[in-house]
Amino acid sequence: MEILDGKKIKDEILDELRNEVNNMQEKPTLVVVQVGNNEASNVYIKQKAKMARYVGYQFHHIKLDDTITEEELLYEIDKLNKDKSVHGILVQMPLPSQINTYKVQNAVLPEKDVDGLSDINTGKLFHGKDALYSCTPFGVMELLKRYKINVVGKNVVVVGRSNLVGKPMATMLINEGATVTICHSKTNDLPKYTFNADILIVAVGKPKLITADMVKDGAVVIDVGINRLENRLCGDVDYENVLPKCSYITPVPGGVGQMTVAMLGKNVLKAYKIQKEK
Amino acid sequence: MEILDGKKIKDEILDELRNEVNNMQEKPTLVVVQVGNNEASNVYIKQKAKMARYVGYQFHHIKLDDTITEEELLYEIDKLNKDKSVHGILVQMPLPSQINTYKVQNAVLPEKDVDGLSDINTGKLFHGKDALYSCTPFGVMELLKRYKINVVGKNVVVVGRSNLVGKPMATMLINEGATVTICHSKTNDLPKYTFNADILIVAVGKPKLITADMVKDGAVVIDVGINRLENRLCGDVDYENVLPKCSYITPVPGGVGQMTVAMLGKNVLKAYKIQKEK
Repeated sequence: MEILDGKKIKDEILDELRNEVNNMQEKPTLVVVQVGNNEASNVYIKQKAKMARYVGYQFHHIKLDDTITEEELLYEIDKLNKDKSVHGILVQMPLPSQINTYKVQNAVLPEKDVDGLSDINTGKLFHGKDALYSCTPFGVMELLKRYKINVVGKNVVVVGRSNLVGKPMATMLINEGATVTICHSKTNDLPKYTFNADILIVAVGKPKLITADMVKDGAVVIDVGINRLENRLCGDVDYENVLPKCSYITPVPGGVGQMTVAMLGKNVLKAYKIQKEK
Repeated sequence: MEILDGKKIKDEILDELRNEVNNMQEKPTLVVVQVGNNEASNVYIKQKAKMARYVGYQFHHIKLDDTITEEELLYEIDKLNKDKSVHGILVQMPLPSQINTYKVQNAVLPEKDVDGLSDINTGKLFHGKDALYSCTPFGVMELLKRYKINVVGKNVVVVGRSNLVGKPMATMLINEGATVTICHSKTNDLPKYTFNADILIVAVGKPKLITADMVKDGAVVIDVGINRLENRLCGDVDYENVLPKCSYITPVPGGVGQMTVAMLGKNVLKAYKIQKEK
């Protein structure tokens, strides 16, 4: 049994990026737009700022009042779209209820959409084309790759069908040749599916949803969940009990979450290159 | 055991469309662009023309020489995009090798893309948003709906991972609440998956790939394959032998192929409405 060390791989990736950026005259610029003062968002943005500083990116944090209208937010994004000194734009989620999240995600220029959530980037992923991909599933793929875990022909079960993780995760795996099953809240008899998985990826947001009896001996278990339980972070997997059954498992924290930040770092450099090639 | 009669359902849908179009002053216009003189394409275009005439659409068939350059084809599409009297544009596949198919598919304005193959329409489907959807998988969903076959929580296995059928099919089913497994050429032990399917959808293009021993008793079997074998059309399913085991099955011809044309009919009217609402 081996622990998939997201922290270690993130550090590797950030060092690779830092080396490349170090040799660049112009430094890529990432702008994070936050609406309101959500506590979790503050933490996430700090992590992103730290990553950007380490790699050598320019980083700007635009914090807007949570009473802002959708029109005003779209105007801010439009300014950033037109600003040639800005290469990556990330609108931190969640947005307040007066704002249509989907509309905002699609307002960011595809080539600056470092979150990879716009229709065009998702459509490109769907067609197996190079694009800016959603950071969390892209991070899972990178983690598997760096640990040389082959997905071709494997029975991969993805639990969760969100636009942010489940669906792009499944698409990336299909494109790479895995046999993929997508389970979710409407699935009857979830253990029947999870128990047959060679690779089990869980992105639901329910602490200890996956118990040891639901996991095949020797499976690879990827836990995308980040839940707060009795003031501790935990994933969707009952880690202590599942651990002895796995060939590989990601911890929470220190697993997929770390990879998400690393892939944002990768996307900023990629966005920069796409814009320079235009 | 009941046969899912694509021809009957297509006729129902075309009559619904015809009634609606009959009450419209302006008639929606569909333009099919063909490059070269592929025989199968000629047959498909004839079917589309017949559908359009029946419903009451204007129909134009632009036939271009197969020596046309990509640039010239893109210029033709651009003219059609700008022409306000054109509501639906369909570029008939396959295109000759000097032309980048993906580029051409994305050159059609999303609101005129009645084939539903552009990145934007695929991205919208991915996010569960209303859009012009790919006709064949959309036709399968409509066929299931009209026969009141519920997909929620069902174990649905899709064999094939093409951009045209397999992937959008899986996405539509996930959006509707099915538990979906996507199998393909890299899948190990295909029968293990197919045999557990409540609903089995096959879109591969291999005659008799699915034999009776691969199908669960009482399964719903949807055959998207259209193959020519000994001068007869047949699907990917060994129809005669699978038939007795099914609760429902689509024939080939007379099944999904009919639905594809019907959904093109639906998409033309929808494209028209989207353009009028702008």
